[in-house]
Amino acid sequence: MGRTSDAREKIISAAQSLIELRGYSALGVAEICKTAGVPKGSFYYFFESKEALALTVLDEHWVGQRREWTRVLGGDAAPLERLRQLFEETEASQRAGQQSCGTVSGCLFGNLTLELSNQTEAIRERLQEIFDAQVGMVESVVAEARERGEVAVADPREAARSVVAQLEGQVLFAKLYNNTSQLSVLWANCLALLGARTPQEVAAEA
Amino acid sequence: MGRTSDAREKIISAAQSLIELRGYSALGVAEICKTAGVPKGSFYYFFESKEALALTVLDEHWVGQRREWTRVLGGDAAPLERLRQLFEETEASQRAGQQSCGTVSGCLFGNLTLELSNQTEAIRERLQEIFDAQVGMVESVVAEARERGEVAVADPREAARSVVAQLEGQVLFAKLYNNTSQLSVLWANCLALLGARTPQEVAAEA
Repeated sequence: MGRTSDAREKIISAAQSLIELRGYSALGVAEICKTAGVPKGSFYYFFESKEALALTVLDEHWVGQRREWTRVLGGDAAPLERLRQLFEETEASQRAGQQSCGTVSGCLFGNLTLELSNQTEAIRERLQEIFDAQVGMVESVVAEARERGEVAVADPREAARSVVAQLEGQVLFAKLYNNTSQLSVLWANCLALLGARTPQEVAAEA
Repeated sequence: MGRTSDAREKIISAAQSLIELRGYSALGVAEICKTAGVPKGSFYYFFESKEALALTVLDEHWVGQRREWTRVLGGDAAPLERLRQLFEETEASQRAGQQSCGTVSGCLFGNLTLELSNQTEAIRERLQEIFDAQVGMVESVVAEARERGEVAVADPREAARSVVAQLEGQVLFAKLYNNTSQLSVLWANCLALLGARTPQEVAAEA
């Protein structure tokens, strides 16, 4: 059982790396198994199809990312400060990815949204759930900032969606130019989108 | 010669439709030729490779889109008004695409950026040139608005990049949810990102 369970993890890990490098459609099951170092028979023991594997990769990636987002966005810092930390960690994580594999891989969820959402409904639905959850997490922080009078937004959910959209758009550019420095504008753009007073403005009034 | 030239156009047109529906990697030359209704031999008469075809599809799509962007952004209206028109036309064009093929296809350039920019340098470079040109066109309008005192941006190029990033991020969501209505926030978000006074504010001071 120990070895079998290893094989499953190896397949998932190989698939995630390959999908980040080359997308989903370009991959075949044989290549995934070869990279994972497991016989092809193992694949169909654990996964019904390549699509089932892709859903598992999405789930596992989201488990990890949700843990990070929860740690940052559910922390003790002031709400806008938590959003700033989220962008800093996003930039750091894209930079770390670039250092390890030579190119900025971007956001796995954004990549698969543009590649696959019109092709498989199961993947579209899973990605919708993940982005709904991301937007919901940002929305809570925006609502908290609004209660403190730090942002001027009519609809915290819509504002949160725009913040996540800006994040996805800038990550797209980071991938296109293989350059993460552009991500440093996320914080200022987030403040602008939220009609926020800057921390300096808030401090000056205190 | 007339027929030969038809075949080339048919291949490009079929490839564009198929790439918009299913991405690049999922396609084979045989399928493109079948959809185009041309023999496979014609393909290699006109295109060295599938990648060469993709570059041509990008170029032709950009010729059409640049014409639209030039018409709107180079028009006689006030600069911010021209940006508003750009977003309205983007929304209308995504909606028209959805009506004709059942799903929002998103932005061909954004789709291929996330699918391919780490895989082929030739496509990455072409997409960089196209996005550079888009950002440059928006930058000119932002610089004009700044001269008129209508926006508060330190760096028109960086501001323009953020406007285009927001556009790409929102189009990603439109594709994910197969719903173009979210694109209606682009105009308000653009004003926020540019630190713009609203047309009402400008009029009130006049």
